[in-house]
Amino acid sequence: MPQKTRLFIPGPTPVPPQVAEAMARPLIGHRTQDFAGLYARLTKKLQQVCGTVNEVYILTASGTGGMEAAVASILNPGDKVLALVTGKFGERFAELAKVYGAAVDAVEFGWGNPADVNLVEDRMKAGKYKAVLATHNETSTTVVNDIKSIGELTRKEGVLLVVDAVSSAGGIEMHADDWGVDVLITASQKALMVPPGLAMVSMSPQAWEAVKKGRNPRYYLSLYAAKRSFARYNTPYTPAVSLFVGLDAALDMILSEGLDNVYRRHIAFGKATRAAMKSLGLKPLAPEEWASPVVTGVWAPEGMNADDIRRSVLKDYGILLAGGQEQLKGRIFRISHMGYIDAVDLLGMIAVIEIGLKKLGYPLALGTATAAAQAVLAGGELGV
Amino acid sequence: MPQKTRLFIPGPTPVPPQVAEAMARPLIGHRTQDFAGLYARLTKKLQQVCGTVNEVYILTASGTGGMEAAVASILNPGDKVLALVTGKFGERFAELAKVYGAAVDAVEFGWGNPADVNLVEDRMKAGKYKAVLATHNETSTTVVNDIKSIGELTRKEGVLLVVDAVSSAGGIEMHADDWGVDVLITASQKALMVPPGLAMVSMSPQAWEAVKKGRNPRYYLSLYAAKRSFARYNTPYTPAVSLFVGLDAALDMILSEGLDNVYRRHIAFGKATRAAMKSLGLKPLAPEEWASPVVTGVWAPEGMNADDIRRSVLKDYGILLAGGQEQLKGRIFRISHMGYIDAVDLLGMIAVIEIGLKKLGYPLALGTATAAAQAVLAGGELGV
Repeated sequence: MPQKTRLFIPGPTPVPPQVAEAMARPLIGHRTQDFAGLYARLTKKLQQVCGTVNEVYILTASGTGGMEAAVASILNPGDKVLALVTGKFGERFAELAKVYGAAVDAVEFGWGNPADVNLVEDRMKAGKYKAVLATHNETSTTVVNDIKSIGELTRKEGVLLVVDAVSSAGGIEMHADDWGVDVLITASQKALMVPPGLAMVSMSPQAWEAVKKGRNPRYYLSLYAAKRSFARYNTPYTPAVSLFVGLDAALDMILSEGLDNVYRRHIAFGKATRAAMKSLGLKPLAPEEWASPVVTGVWAPEGMNADDIRRSVLKDYGILLAGGQEQLKGRIFRISHMGYIDAVDLLGMIAVIEIGLKKLGYPLALGTATAAAQAVLAGGELGV
Repeated sequence: MPQKTRLFIPGPTPVPPQVAEAMARPLIGHRTQDFAGLYARLTKKLQQVCGTVNEVYILTASGTGGMEAAVASILNPGDKVLALVTGKFGERFAELAKVYGAAVDAVEFGWGNPADVNLVEDRMKAGKYKAVLATHNETSTTVVNDIKSIGELTRKEGVLLVVDAVSSAGGIEMHADDWGVDVLITASQKALMVPPGLAMVSMSPQAWEAVKKGRNPRYYLSLYAAKRSFARYNTPYTPAVSLFVGLDAALDMILSEGLDNVYRRHIAFGKATRAAMKSLGLKPLAPEEWASPVVTGVWAPEGMNADDIRRSVLKDYGILLAGGQEQLKGRIFRISHMGYIDAVDLLGMIAVIEIGLKKLGYPLALGTATAAAQAVLAGGELGV
């Protein structure tokens, strides 16, 4: 049988059949009332997911395009920016700001740790920043940052908070307005369960004030252009229409499950995955308190290359896990459990990781990790 | 999240995306060269799966329609027929022969047992039969019958052997010509991985001799009509074109995996499933030697209703198992592992059955059944 490939990578994630069906419908024209109606519906739904009353612009670009649109729009050459770096995507955010001429103070918290809020407070007191750049869920290091607490600091200091929520929105609780997030960026291919190709950006009134003073060149990624067209629920350039349609179906699924249920499901799957790995003596990368509910990083056992584990489960069982990036390459593997993944997927994948580890010589009793995950997923009802 | 439903019932079975994609293509006309080319291709592929050089007619009907076409074509009122009954589908075969006026001797072997070949031999010596009706894989009781040995008897006695291979073809070894099968009937929605709607019937020259003397009325299910149209690779009545196209894609998958590999995979999955259930102290319905490689029947634990187990895993995890039929209702559950099911599906499903049983109060250590299945699936490589 041609092997089934199962995506347990942190984006693109599996696309639900409901979304695939929606995207397979005949295309609608993008300069039509149908499209305007679609964009209007998407706005309302995205506002719920992001926890904002601000407009949410949808760009035909990947998440990085959304991050660039934000940075290019609100920062000018010489602007002082504090970048909180907890992994590869924090680094990318800092790099983007540098490309657009900002004076970036990048604070590294060490791969596997969340941003230390006290340290952030100290740094903000020491320097006068125009903006803080933060990553909500850092997929490269599988940690979640405390955006709420960081938002309290930036709000107090009158500093813009720009948050990369690419891999969190729709999977991890987010209240952009309540938490004082000025710019929120997300994308289609993570917890939102749509193929890659769309970035979403919401901007607070304060952020728009900064945009008005913007001098950086931008055209395709111009949020001004996006805002102008948004007034008629349209886009300045040709949008990826079928992805918009898919996003509509995916958001319907998320909202009909209920955001709180969606968040709880991701938390439970994260706990189950970490419990499974720990039961085998394997160590999660992130501290339990700040471990991501949507992706779990795991240190390979001593003397074993994490990529050998990944190759084994992919070759034999079609399970695609993510590897470590940069300094973590070969040392960790990452299991995504975001989006359209259910308990049966999770249990089957964990049973396969047991087989893969054992094949590579790691001593374990088959069924151990599965049992640990079962206990988390159904523990309450089983009395275990 | 809208629950994913996973079919572990013995048909319809999960449809591979390759097949679904093929069926979604624009329809072709059924009185065209395109359709004739398709039917010609299907014939060659079905001949390989059935192990025959005879023509294979494709009827737009379910498997029962194919069984009726065969029985109505070769039997006349008063003809003596020996029906080997090892479950519900054996009963149906006997019933069909009675409907068409045959004098049917039905031998019941008890639900859960295969046909006893010695007993068949005795009965054949005692009575002069025109045909023997046998079920290859009896899904209701999850046993496989020894068609090869039965074929040796019928060939020796010059009796027609009519075999219901509805749930076996493409999943269990079948060599119709070598084994002396005169009429072989199968259907699309079992191991062939296509939605329901097609029945396939192949007939030996001896069977055609009987058809020539046929007096029973038939029109839609006439194999004569099918044969006449087959000469131009066409059908007498409108065929389910998209299912033909899907069958083409499914047979390509099966033949490119290789029939021997397909059979070995099903055997391994049957063994893994039975080992998993036995590890929990649950008893398979069929004796190990004649247990079906494509579907496993399991007795519910003492004092537990099998349908409660089915309801639990369906409600909580979207796993659809089959129940027992007629006298086995509530007493067994059946797990299909035929067609487009892989090891990850199997392991996830088994882990969920553990949870379901435990929830209903059956004492077990989580992970036990999963470990037993893992050991069968990967045992050789794991040294367990």
